[in-house]
Amino acid sequence: MRKATIISIGDELILGQTVDTNSAWLASRLAEFGVRATRHVTVADDREAIGAALKAVVGDSGLVILSGGLGPTADDVTRFALADGAGVELRVHAPSVERLRAFFAARSRDLPEANLIQAQIPETGTALVNTCGTAPGIYMRIDGTPVFALPGVPHELREMFAREVAPVLTETAVGNVIRSTCVQTFGLPEAEIGRRLSDLMERERIPQVGTTAAFGLIGVRINARSASAEAAHEMLDATRTEIEQRLGRYAFGRDDDTLASVVGRALRAVGQTLATAESCTGGLIGAQLTEVPGSSDYYVGSVVCYANHVKEKMLGVPAELLAAHGAVSEQVAEAMVAGCAARFQTDYSLAVTGIAGPTSDNSEKPVGLVFIGLSDGSATDVRKHLFGADQPRHAIRLRAAYSALNLLRLRLLDA
Amino acid sequence: MRKATIISIGDELILGQTVDTNSAWLASRLAEFGVRATRHVTVADDREAIGAALKAVVGDSGLVILSGGLGPTADDVTRFALADGAGVELRVHAPSVERLRAFFAARSRDLPEANLIQAQIPETGTALVNTCGTAPGIYMRIDGTPVFALPGVPHELREMFAREVAPVLTETAVGNVIRSTCVQTFGLPEAEIGRRLSDLMERERIPQVGTTAAFGLIGVRINARSASAEAAHEMLDATRTEIEQRLGRYAFGRDDDTLASVVGRALRAVGQTLATAESCTGGLIGAQLTEVPGSSDYYVGSVVCYANHVKEKMLGVPAELLAAHGAVSEQVAEAMVAGCAARFQTDYSLAVTGIAGPTSDNSEKPVGLVFIGLSDGSATDVRKHLFGADQPRHAIRLRAAYSALNLLRLRLLDA
Repeated sequence: MRKATIISIGDELILGQTVDTNSAWLASRLAEFGVRATRHVTVADDREAIGAALKAVVGDSGLVILSGGLGPTADDVTRFALADGAGVELRVHAPSVERLRAFFAARSRDLPEANLIQAQIPETGTALVNTCGTAPGIYMRIDGTPVFALPGVPHELREMFAREVAPVLTETAVGNVIRSTCVQTFGLPEAEIGRRLSDLMERERIPQVGTTAAFGLIGVRINARSASAEAAHEMLDATRTEIEQRLGRYAFGRDDDTLASVVGRALRAVGQTLATAESCTGGLIGAQLTEVPGSSDYYVGSVVCYANHVKEKMLGVPAELLAAHGAVSEQVAEAMVAGCAARFQTDYSLAVTGIAGPTSDNSEKPVGLVFIGLSDGSATDVRKHLFGADQPRHAIRLRAAYSALNLLRLRLLDA
Repeated sequence: MRKATIISIGDELILGQTVDTNSAWLASRLAEFGVRATRHVTVADDREAIGAALKAVVGDSGLVILSGGLGPTADDVTRFALADGAGVELRVHAPSVERLRAFFAARSRDLPEANLIQAQIPETGTALVNTCGTAPGIYMRIDGTPVFALPGVPHELREMFAREVAPVLTETAVGNVIRSTCVQTFGLPEAEIGRRLSDLMERERIPQVGTTAAFGLIGVRINARSASAEAAHEMLDATRTEIEQRLGRYAFGRDDDTLASVVGRALRAVGQTLATAESCTGGLIGAQLTEVPGSSDYYVGSVVCYANHVKEKMLGVPAELLAAHGAVSEQVAEAMVAGCAARFQTDYSLAVTGIAGPTSDNSEKPVGLVFIGLSDGSATDVRKHLFGADQPRHAIRLRAAYSALNLLRLRLLDA
């Protein structure tokens, strides 16, 4: 199997001011082509440091991918380091100048002089077209090793990888390939998943199975390595089927599926609609649902009722109920979901009210207490959750949003 | 300056299935104590691989921090690798068993047998208390080098670092310290920021200045290295003041400030309130506003009006207006914000309608077209944006949310 090195460039990465998402994305895509990114190196925005990192790896890497440092400001020095590495000069690449001019013209702006540096490419290099930003990428060989320099902006990097790097990898892919998949689960503790899958998770077993947890979402990853993509897929499929059977309804999807996308697919399949009423999540459920393209087919909207008077006025929650039980109560969750159903007239309604923290103003109601209501127009179901007063605000909000979507998912499975 | 190595453990990291956020966070915290994390190594969930990585770095690192692999499932092998590294056995740590039991009892659950492995600590190691999860950390010396193994769950790692690692660093900190700050900006292109700050961004200058861009938010980072924290802070302050003067109103905050937190602070200062009406952002603005603790002081709620009939019914947008101009139009944005103001009776109202993509069903309205309305009760302002049809859905939604919050921020500055 071929080995690659990923070099991430940026002072902000070395000092930890920015999280490096590009390395993970690149490693994942490379693996699909049977290339294992065995080295992830992080370098400062420093011409010499980038040069030294390049020199150290070009000898025994089959491929080097750099990300970052192609912007228009003085701290962007990747192009200089590449030229140094190949012992050549930079020169203006006229088509890149024209593309820059067109990029700004499409936004009714003149090309800023500072951006002209982005059209300078090492003499022995090739400019890679950036379809969604200003920085062209650079491809060149250094000491015989193919080196791709991609922009650090994640969506520009991804687009350029697909257009410029992936075709090269496809042409040259040989030997073992890695294929991966993930079974997405919600609602089962990680230890219980480990118990149910203990034989599958033994370290010697192929394909390998492992878990990753985030806010109650537990992903069960399966990695298969084989001589061909077909063989790897067969191994994956068999293990995935076994895992999905053992986890039953806790397994909600695969790979990029989210609770929001799975709920959306189920609603679309039966032509039904959903509205939400959000208090402690403040719009997070709506934001997750509408992140899915085409969600307007089934999601009509929400009342975010952060203030109590909004719960009264926009959802018809009785003031006496709020006074008697408090906004975070089973009774108010039930009234919220009833009000949501009455106003939006959707097939399903979800309501959430809780204490996200960091503090609670009611000693009898701890941080992490959340009530979730679900109505299908006739019956209403309210669930109480205790997400743990030791959890941070964003964790409680995410768990509340996921739990609400999961409650609806299970209802749709039963319907 | 002392050097540290960060070892991130996980198959999901090597294969790029999960983004490593812990390394950045650790590097950032270490820098505050004058420790530069010069090596970031990523290792698979493999006892031998972790052992080899440890062996390779303990000799010339002043400190090693591992993250991950302390969970209850079979793929969590960090504790075994640490024991191997020190040539010792694991033994049951009774207080950790009791803490595990208490953790589950607080959630009305029995301690699962699988979690007992988490109370096993290498004989020469010390268990580190996990205040918000099940995995204790481990501290031990290997070949004389202090090694901390922290849980991979980010908020558990952060809490444990603060409780267990930071005090040790404070006691032993010597020599140069790094202090960093960031001026947060919105609305000015990166190239223009580079032009205005060109002399400050020269690579030789101290403190160093660099930019990082994400969805229109441009952070201007300043890094100062000095013998003392006081001297570093003085350097930072002088440069930050200069940058803030040059960028004027485009600079909206510092460090962890977000547009939502800055808008919230401004509203709280004058005792005013805000409501929103969200179409294409689907709740994202509400979610950002309510991520800030205490946001109920000024944010009352939102109508997420994804469907047109919700715009009519819940906001009073006339059906004729929708028919004549379409949901994504200046006229509808104006009617949405007027309806929002009338219903919520807040001091300010924000409304957003746009085409987030990936496709548009109207050839005259491109993906990325967004209208944002702001009302202060008397006057209404509607702005048209073209975020670029080449941008992905989540980028257009984020830019729309940021632009709406920024419009209100500028209005509050003028008020």
